[in-house]
Amino acid sequence: MAKDKVCVVIGAGDATGGAIARRFAREGYTAVVTRRNADKLTPLVATITKEGGKVHPFGSDAREEAQVVDLFQQIETEIGQVEVFVFNIGGNVRFDIRDTTSRVYRKVWEMTAFAGFLTAREAAKVMVPRGQGTILFTGATASLRGGRGFSAFAGGKHAVRALAQSMARELGPQNIHVAHVVIDGAIDTEWIRTNFPERYNAGPDAVLNPDDIAEAYWQLHRQPRSAWTFEMDLRPWKESW
Amino acid sequence: MAKDKVCVVIGAGDATGGAIARRFAREGYTAVVTRRNADKLTPLVATITKEGGKVHPFGSDAREEAQVVDLFQQIETEIGQVEVFVFNIGGNVRFDIRDTTSRVYRKVWEMTAFAGFLTAREAAKVMVPRGQGTILFTGATASLRGGRGFSAFAGGKHAVRALAQSMARELGPQNIHVAHVVIDGAIDTEWIRTNFPERYNAGPDAVLNPDDIAEAYWQLHRQPRSAWTFEMDLRPWKESW
Amino acid sequence: MAKDKVCVVIGAGDATGGAIARRFAREGYTAVVTRRNADKLTPLVATITKEGGKVHPFGSDAREEAQVVDLFQQIETEIGQVEVFVFNIGGNVRFDIRDTTSRVYRKVWEMTAFAGFLTAREAAKVMVPRGQGTILFTGATASLRGGRGFSAFAGGKHAVRALAQSMARELGPQNIHVAHVVIDGAIDTEWIRTNFPERYNAGPDAVLNPDDIAEAYWQLHRQPRSAWTFEMDLRPWKESW
Amino acid sequence: MAKDKVCVVIGAGDATGGAIARRFAREGYTAVVTRRNADKLTPLVATITKEGGKVHPFGSDAREEAQVVDLFQQIETEIGQVEVFVFNIGGNVRFDIRDTTSRVYRKVWEMTAFAGFLTAREAAKVMVPRGQGTILFTGATASLRGGRGFSAFAGGKHAVRALAQSMARELGPQNIHVAHVVIDGAIDTEWIRTNFPERYNAGPDAVLNPDDIAEAYWQLHRQPRSAWTFEMDLRPWKESW
Repeated sequence: MAKDKVCVVIGAGDATGGAIARRFAREGYTAVVTRRNADKLTPLVATITKEGGKVHPFGSDAREEAQVVDLFQQIETEIGQVEVFVFNIGGNVRFDIRDTTSRVYRKVWEMTAFAGFLTAREAAKVMVPRGQGTILFTGATASLRGGRGFSAFAGGKHAVRALAQSMARELGPQNIHVAHVVIDGAIDTEWIRTNFPERYNAGPDAVLNPDDIAEAYWQLHRQPRSAWTFEMDLRPWKESW
Repeated sequence: MAKDKVCVVIGAGDATGGAIARRFAREGYTAVVTRRNADKLTPLVATITKEGGKVHPFGSDAREEAQVVDLFQQIETEIGQVEVFVFNIGGNVRFDIRDTTSRVYRKVWEMTAFAGFLTAREAAKVMVPRGQGTILFTGATASLRGGRGFSAFAGGKHAVRALAQSMARELGPQNIHVAHVVIDGAIDTEWIRTNFPERYNAGPDAVLNPDDIAEAYWQLHRQPRSAWTFEMDLRPWKESW
Repeated sequence: MAKDKVCVVIGAGDATGGAIARRFAREGYTAVVTRRNADKLTPLVATITKEGGKVHPFGSDAREEAQVVDLFQQIETEIGQVEVFVFNIGGNVRFDIRDTTSRVYRKVWEMTAFAGFLTAREAAKVMVPRGQGTILFTGATASLRGGRGFSAFAGGKHAVRALAQSMARELGPQNIHVAHVVIDGAIDTEWIRTNFPERYNAGPDAVLNPDDIAEAYWQLHRQPRSAWTFEMDLRPWKESW
Repeated sequence: MAKDKVCVVIGAGDATGGAIARRFAREGYTAVVTRRNADKLTPLVATITKEGGKVHPFGSDAREEAQVVDLFQQIETEIGQVEVFVFNIGGNVRFDIRDTTSRVYRKVWEMTAFAGFLTAREAAKVMVPRGQGTILFTGATASLRGGRGFSAFAGGKHAVRALAQSMARELGPQNIHVAHVVIDGAIDTEWIRTNFPERYNAGPDAVLNPDDIAEAYWQLHRQPRSAWTFEMDLRPWKESW
């Protein structure tokens, strides 16, 4: 019988998702980490295992309903109870409106809003009957405002925030804590290091450290229910906003 | 050669879209009104014609890129220059998160965000080279916040607002006025009269009069470019908010 | 017996207040224009009179309760019924937090929030018993967000917006239309021309034309009560936001 | 020579301020707790002392500049370095606009915005030269929106938020972490127990536990500077919002 308490991280491909999985694994949660290509999860699995944590990688496309339903069924049957759910898929693209193809617009929505909806809904399905759980969404500056070139990305992120807020208002009174974290700044990743060296080199801590983001997610999960946060922002100290 | 100045209303099916088309037709614009089923446009066409206006109905599915591209090409070739564009498709549904099917979630997004993106982008394509035009989006309370049961509807409306804001920031300096109207209250329609009689009967002007909404759209279009509005709300005087 | 319908503009010292007074005078309202020093109102009075309008200047300190109470009593007794009230006093200063004196912080609040409260409350006192009236507040970018150096100014403008929103929610159902206009950009004034020539010279309509602002206030007043706006923004087409 | 690291709590009169002081005292900070009447701090001082913490009570009126300047001078000279500053004075009143006296309006502003400005500015003066510190403001629902009867209270709280945001943008890059906590719900106090028993009795954790609020403040202070939060909300799980 599956007994572990599970933290599922959808989109554990980048630095943030991986750091969150490690943080919860350190606290005794079994981390279930997913991305489309399971092979790319190998380094993360090795790290968590080496740190003494338990982890299960899944190659799973969060935009495909059947795969998402199977994923949750398999976790609950074979691994344990989903107590924490983190949706962390990005989709940052930038095109002027006339250069935004319908393919890009749709794809970004599928990666952000649709995948967020499918996976969070399945999480809700297992959490609500138990009357317990935490559902966390990774947001961005584009969750709060549009900008030149961001019709697709801001559209997807705005929709994720609407999803999070709708779920928080419905599920809070059912003892499910839903929260949305607005990450307002560049995260310390290989991609930022390569493409935006000036941000990376702006001084110590000028970009977001994934471990520091993960700590905020952990603290959200720890909040007692008399004082739950729905939304918080995270940005580096030197960030102009 | 097509010479008329055209006001396109996408989603002229309900009271609001029809009232907007009539308002602009009264000012000398040729109204192009669309909805999926052209037959249902017959009463509106009759009204505008009777009032001395010019109007062209189109059966066109705003979620189908080929149809949208054709629509704008046909208007510009055969009717006139699109000077005003209004996106007015709704999609109000309400389901608790666990009861929201992927079909509903996707469909609401297609009707709101995706259709808004496709049609407004085509409008931008003809307006930008001329350096002139007005693009207006109909929003709702759900454009600004989620709520229990509104993951799909608020998701779509949030994404439309992100689209509008992204386009406004990009196209404003190109002399295209983009605005978003947040309609916060029930509109005087047959549907409200039948399903929410208590709102309808709450006293005079307790629901939004479509002609009054249309007037606000007309005033937005009339604004000189030294003082453009991006966003305004509209609600009945007795509305609690 | 006082019979005129009156539009009171508190803070008619700058370009905006004067333009609003002229706009309403053109529509047949008797303009009552106030500022601390009545002498400075002479050119505005001359202009309105020349344009065929009716106008009464008052030297009145909007921060002094006794003067404010007297002002409204005198208007209602000697001139006419206050149907429109516009609060238009600014107070833009910019100091880093450690350089902001308590004198400046208090003074800016008195000019913005406290004066707005005193005058709008007196307007409400005469409007509510008649069940009719329009109350308009001039806001700014600083009404919506703080920024480096803006602790005093943004504090005052945020408080004015809170006042406007509180009054709108209370007085709307009593048939008093309360609205708040967020002016997001430089206004065409002597001060901008002198101190920010680069903004002034950024091209045609690159700064807000006071007459265009005044038109927006007029349109807000004209809105039928089935579709009232609480808040709208106004900015030049080229403004970056 | 003063060597302790100090956490100053302005407005330690209610449950929240006291709980915050205790939380930081438990972590080794010397708590400096202030309210107008020092006698009322006796129980809090006893509690902190009993828990093994260090605490200094001050009777100090945060609306009086001279007293505020003296307070910080005395702390820095005689007790230690202010590393954490918490502004926690309330001012919740509710009057319809026509019943709001100028005395009430001014007094609420003095207790919220003006006292917040004076005390946080003095905190900034000692923190900035050292390039280190945390400044935390307690907000409320009224920080974000007005409502019937809240012209005074929402005005004060909006101004505090504008102050916090202005300080955050200026002082963040100087390594001072400024944050604003929106407390959206009733707090477990004697006053709520007596006056709103239905909220208190709505079930377990239906009102905010001051210790849970205090934990959130502590976690904000602990955030590493690569990922600082400016704003977070706190509300009970059953709260309708």
